[in-house]
Amino acid sequence: MAKAGIERARVGVFGATGYVGREAVRLLSAHPGVEVVFSTGSGAGHLAHERGLDQPADAFLLALPHGVSATYAATLRERYPQAVVIDLSGDLRLPDAASYSRWYHQDHPSPALLGQAPYGLTEIYRDRLRQARLIANPGCYATSVLLPLVPLLRSGLVASQGIVVDAKSGATGAGRTLREDLLFCELLDDFSAYSPGRSHRHLGEMEAVLRDTTGHDLALTFCPHLLPVRRGILSSLYLQSQAPADELRQVLASFYAEAPFVRVGDGRPPRLSEVVGTNECHLSVHSAAPGQVVVFSALDNLLKGASGQAVQNLNLALGLPETTGLARANGA
Amino acid sequence: MAKAGIERARVGVFGATGYVGREAVRLLSAHPGVEVVFSTGSGAGHLAHERGLDQPADAFLLALPHGVSATYAATLRERYPQAVVIDLSGDLRLPDAASYSRWYHQDHPSPALLGQAPYGLTEIYRDRLRQARLIANPGCYATSVLLPLVPLLRSGLVASQGIVVDAKSGATGAGRTLREDLLFCELLDDFSAYSPGRSHRHLGEMEAVLRDTTGHDLALTFCPHLLPVRRGILSSLYLQSQAPADELRQVLASFYAEAPFVRVGDGRPPRLSEVVGTNECHLSVHSAAPGQVVVFSALDNLLKGASGQAVQNLNLALGLPETTGLARANGA
Amino acid sequence: MAKAGIERARVGVFGATGYVGREAVRLLSAHPGVEVVFSTGSGAGHLAHERGLDQPADAFLLALPHGVSATYAATLRERYPQAVVIDLSGDLRLPDAASYSRWYHQDHPSPALLGQAPYGLTEIYRDRLRQARLIANPGCYATSVLLPLVPLLRSGLVASQGIVVDAKSGATGAGRTLREDLLFCELLDDFSAYSPGRSHRHLGEMEAVLRDTTGHDLALTFCPHLLPVRRGILSSLYLQSQAPADELRQVLASFYAEAPFVRVGDGRPPRLSEVVGTNECHLSVHSAAPGQVVVFSALDNLLKGASGQAVQNLNLALGLPETTGLARANGA
Amino acid sequence: MAKAGIERARVGVFGATGYVGREAVRLLSAHPGVEVVFSTGSGAGHLAHERGLDQPADAFLLALPHGVSATYAATLRERYPQAVVIDLSGDLRLPDAASYSRWYHQDHPSPALLGQAPYGLTEIYRDRLRQARLIANPGCYATSVLLPLVPLLRSGLVASQGIVVDAKSGATGAGRTLREDLLFCELLDDFSAYSPGRSHRHLGEMEAVLRDTTGHDLALTFCPHLLPVRRGILSSLYLQSQAPADELRQVLASFYAEAPFVRVGDGRPPRLSEVVGTNECHLSVHSAAPGQVVVFSALDNLLKGASGQAVQNLNLALGLPETTGLARANGA
Repeated sequence: MAKAGIERARVGVFGATGYVGREAVRLLSAHPGVEVVFSTGSGAGHLAHERGLDQPADAFLLALPHGVSATYAATLRERYPQAVVIDLSGDLRLPDAASYSRWYHQDHPSPALLGQAPYGLTEIYRDRLRQARLIANPGCYATSVLLPLVPLLRSGLVASQGIVVDAKSGATGAGRTLREDLLFCELLDDFSAYSPGRSHRHLGEMEAVLRDTTGHDLALTFCPHLLPVRRGILSSLYLQSQAPADELRQVLASFYAEAPFVRVGDGRPPRLSEVVGTNECHLSVHSAAPGQVVVFSALDNLLKGASGQAVQNLNLALGLPETTGLARANGA
Repeated sequence: MAKAGIERARVGVFGATGYVGREAVRLLSAHPGVEVVFSTGSGAGHLAHERGLDQPADAFLLALPHGVSATYAATLRERYPQAVVIDLSGDLRLPDAASYSRWYHQDHPSPALLGQAPYGLTEIYRDRLRQARLIANPGCYATSVLLPLVPLLRSGLVASQGIVVDAKSGATGAGRTLREDLLFCELLDDFSAYSPGRSHRHLGEMEAVLRDTTGHDLALTFCPHLLPVRRGILSSLYLQSQAPADELRQVLASFYAEAPFVRVGDGRPPRLSEVVGTNECHLSVHSAAPGQVVVFSALDNLLKGASGQAVQNLNLALGLPETTGLARANGA
Repeated sequence: MAKAGIERARVGVFGATGYVGREAVRLLSAHPGVEVVFSTGSGAGHLAHERGLDQPADAFLLALPHGVSATYAATLRERYPQAVVIDLSGDLRLPDAASYSRWYHQDHPSPALLGQAPYGLTEIYRDRLRQARLIANPGCYATSVLLPLVPLLRSGLVASQGIVVDAKSGATGAGRTLREDLLFCELLDDFSAYSPGRSHRHLGEMEAVLRDTTGHDLALTFCPHLLPVRRGILSSLYLQSQAPADELRQVLASFYAEAPFVRVGDGRPPRLSEVVGTNECHLSVHSAAPGQVVVFSALDNLLKGASGQAVQNLNLALGLPETTGLARANGA
Repeated sequence: MAKAGIERARVGVFGATGYVGREAVRLLSAHPGVEVVFSTGSGAGHLAHERGLDQPADAFLLALPHGVSATYAATLRERYPQAVVIDLSGDLRLPDAASYSRWYHQDHPSPALLGQAPYGLTEIYRDRLRQARLIANPGCYATSVLLPLVPLLRSGLVASQGIVVDAKSGATGAGRTLREDLLFCELLDDFSAYSPGRSHRHLGEMEAVLRDTTGHDLALTFCPHLLPVRRGILSSLYLQSQAPADELRQVLASFYAEAPFVRVGDGRPPRLSEVVGTNECHLSVHSAAPGQVVVFSALDNLLKGASGQAVQNLNLALGLPETTGLARANGA
């Protein structure tokens, strides 16, 4: 392991041919502290997933489908108990099997792992992540929503009731999946919402983290939309608050003063193009109707929303500086 | 005039080279009840705007910039008092000069016209529009928001407080303007909000109409976003209601049972591609967090949001069936 | 049949859920001379393909994959010998089985049909098509190339040697196929050539028709490219000629003087947006290096390149005016 | 100067707010051997162009409009005779004033400079560029055409007659210009050719360089097209040759064996996405009709087609390794 003085940590990536896994390999290949010792997936240069289980390494990233990923995590934990395992699927993000069944409509494949993996929202759980050998990397939407919402709710200046999140994601958020609605001719020049209200899976992890971090048992309204762009999430959060926008902006700016990847703007709302290709999340706060504010949160769904944050967490777990290999992780 | 037995009403279009005016000419050219006798604008086949004032007609459509349009409307009213004048700019939509100054940041060019023109939201003001000689055609965002909001608020099942509208528009909504942010290389693969909270002009006309139709003095939160698509608006409305989504859906379905251009769906949220090229507005209602619902409203910003609705209003004012020339106004 | 005085010809469409078949149904549904009595395909309202064979009709359109389509054509010819059968696949376009094997890399499924179906390039084979009960509807690229090339070669003003065609097609040309390279995230903002030189299937039918119509045994250089647009083909033809561009333009203009769907421009090259949604092919001729000219040919691959031309051919075969149901076949 | 032992060369960039100039600043800011001491342009942080003339530096990059650029080059040569001046406009690319007038339709602003600046096609004129104090950086189309054409013509295996170039460029090639045809709503989902045959300016520099490097007085047929993508040029060259494609591929591979930025593929044609964000040019050769071959050439118009090549040339002129600051110049 890197900590023990070996020059570079050996990392294996499972699922390296999807959009998320490919970004992970790209980031890790340019990372000065690690070495990619294998990757699994379809296509030349990749192992079959199962063969990856036989390859020892100091850390493993799992970019596999949910329902599958946890079984790999379980095997890796058994075989390589000293290694860091970061699961980018949704399998380890929820607190218990009942919650998993409610949001994923299937039984959990390895329920014994639940509750063992800290949630990898780096800026919120940094201390737990330094010690972790098993990490549940957050969902892309969840990251974009929780980064502004946790400190604002903690400040007590924002009501825990009536929170509305209108989120918009680029099409890589759906993965490299052969679905008709993801074809070029279906998506170009079109736009729509999906999973409206209370049906998207990320609601489960968002509300679990909010309960954990703020003590509030919230029910969010969350409506995701599919944008005709490739990368990026913009979440628009509508919050009830008697505080002026400036004060809330200051809450965020103070909370993230030392965070290298969160920027709180004081001007116009963030554009996706400002964050795509980076591991950054850009926030802004604006006044709205009396008693309301709107907060915008923009990030790259494949970087801060997936592989970038996974590398950030890997850095912590390996004892490396948090930004290693991520400074302007130019990826577009 | 058509009413008087003359075969086709003669119509003049001011500002026929912008996106809205071009659509107006396209619709009217295929309209069986009217004849385009002139159009103004830059380019071959068009008169200079001022020369249009000398051309008599039974009806005039004004697709000119705000601040200019009302002066043309005033002249046309004087010279051709029997003619129908439909102003597609924002000049005649607000109730008084003070309100105009607050939202348009300039003095009204013809304040004497204010209060004289019914607001051309056809489904809401149909009876007034049949008698009108001067019509204030609604804004595109305003149409998408008011069509669901007026009947829902009138039903008493939805709270008048805490209303949030997260709206997304294609780039033709900004007109054929040579602005850097509208260049292909700036907009492709990008996305952002603009005029967040309480700054967009359409708020003024939305709130004025809501006051007129429901008696409520509302303050909406309204955040528009610029989509990398050419046509279409999707507005996502977040409303507080104790009624189930089904009941609200029924309110809308009943209210629009006879409206040829408003459709209330009972399945997934509407896609822009379903409404682009038509004069239709598609609505859907979905349950959200307890005490909240989300309503989606989709339309083509150049048709039901502008020229299509103007033709719909023209039909009423000329005594023609409301759908004349608009049945599947295929325009994309 | 329509000819026999029955009001509307009954038409069945096989394969109505692909892009081509969907356009066929859309056109025929608005066509005043026909009635769609059934369509096959996946999804609600469609029969299974095989059940369509049991449904009598006056005409059938086959928008099925090559290799399958001819077997349906054979069965329909047997069961309904009076009916018109139009095959939109490549199965019936080549003169013999050997040629089919060379370009499609498989044996022909119904070789007895080869040679029986006139090639449905309407403007070139109009007389044969009026009598036809079985029609081989041309490929989209082939239509765009042959419309300018046949009259120019026949004029004797253009050399039959050294012809280069650089063609670019929108992604609907590849069908509604779940292929990774057709995903939005793969195609947006990208561009490339494919099947360069002598490998694309449409070469076979292009060269067979050129042999038939001009007597020349040509070998074209043909390079198709995949455009990040949804619809439309632009073919750029580079020809050797000592004649000035004006003279060649005049050859085309004379040849197509009576053709309702071919326009020969005399200004700048045609844009895809001018032809998308119509059954038109727009041509232009421009001077190039000494001894060379360039000809541009633009059409909508789903209309004049597929379903529009099929309806044009159906009109001829049913004795209807060629333009019925196609006047400004606005389809985008 | 860097050569003289000072750590970093001081560079000034004129015209840093256009697409080309912005890329130049981006590359130079991350370049380990230089320091950007000023940039001119509109917007914060930039000097007015004229004030840039008063700022001494070791090198200057001019990303100004043609007709203007040469006057700045002349002043800089006078004031700072030791400095390297690289002009990215077309002003210094042609051999004489008559040629400039013919292609640019205006008199040359500083004819005394003509003939003094080696043409900055690095791989062809590397030796001259090492000595140069004034460099004419090539046009984007010209770079994509000349890189394959110069060695192929020199090999004697390709005819100098009948050369056809069908080129396609992303919209940044037209600059950050407020032109209606460059608006998002005009360009999305559309495609067309422009300046067909013999009218594009880059023909002048292409033919001048071919004359200089091969002795042939050629007349190319050159048709550029505007792609609905942001970055990248794909040129398809159609050449007459009796040699097999493999032999021509080998000619290119040998010629560029030591060139760090030119790659000769042996499989499918290059995609724009493979070169966008890099300073590379990817070439492939394919057989076509007998006696013909097709060559594809892909590059990023803002990098190898403009600012990337300018930095490559700057490196040579400053005595730095050619690839400094350009290794995977990830720029998208």
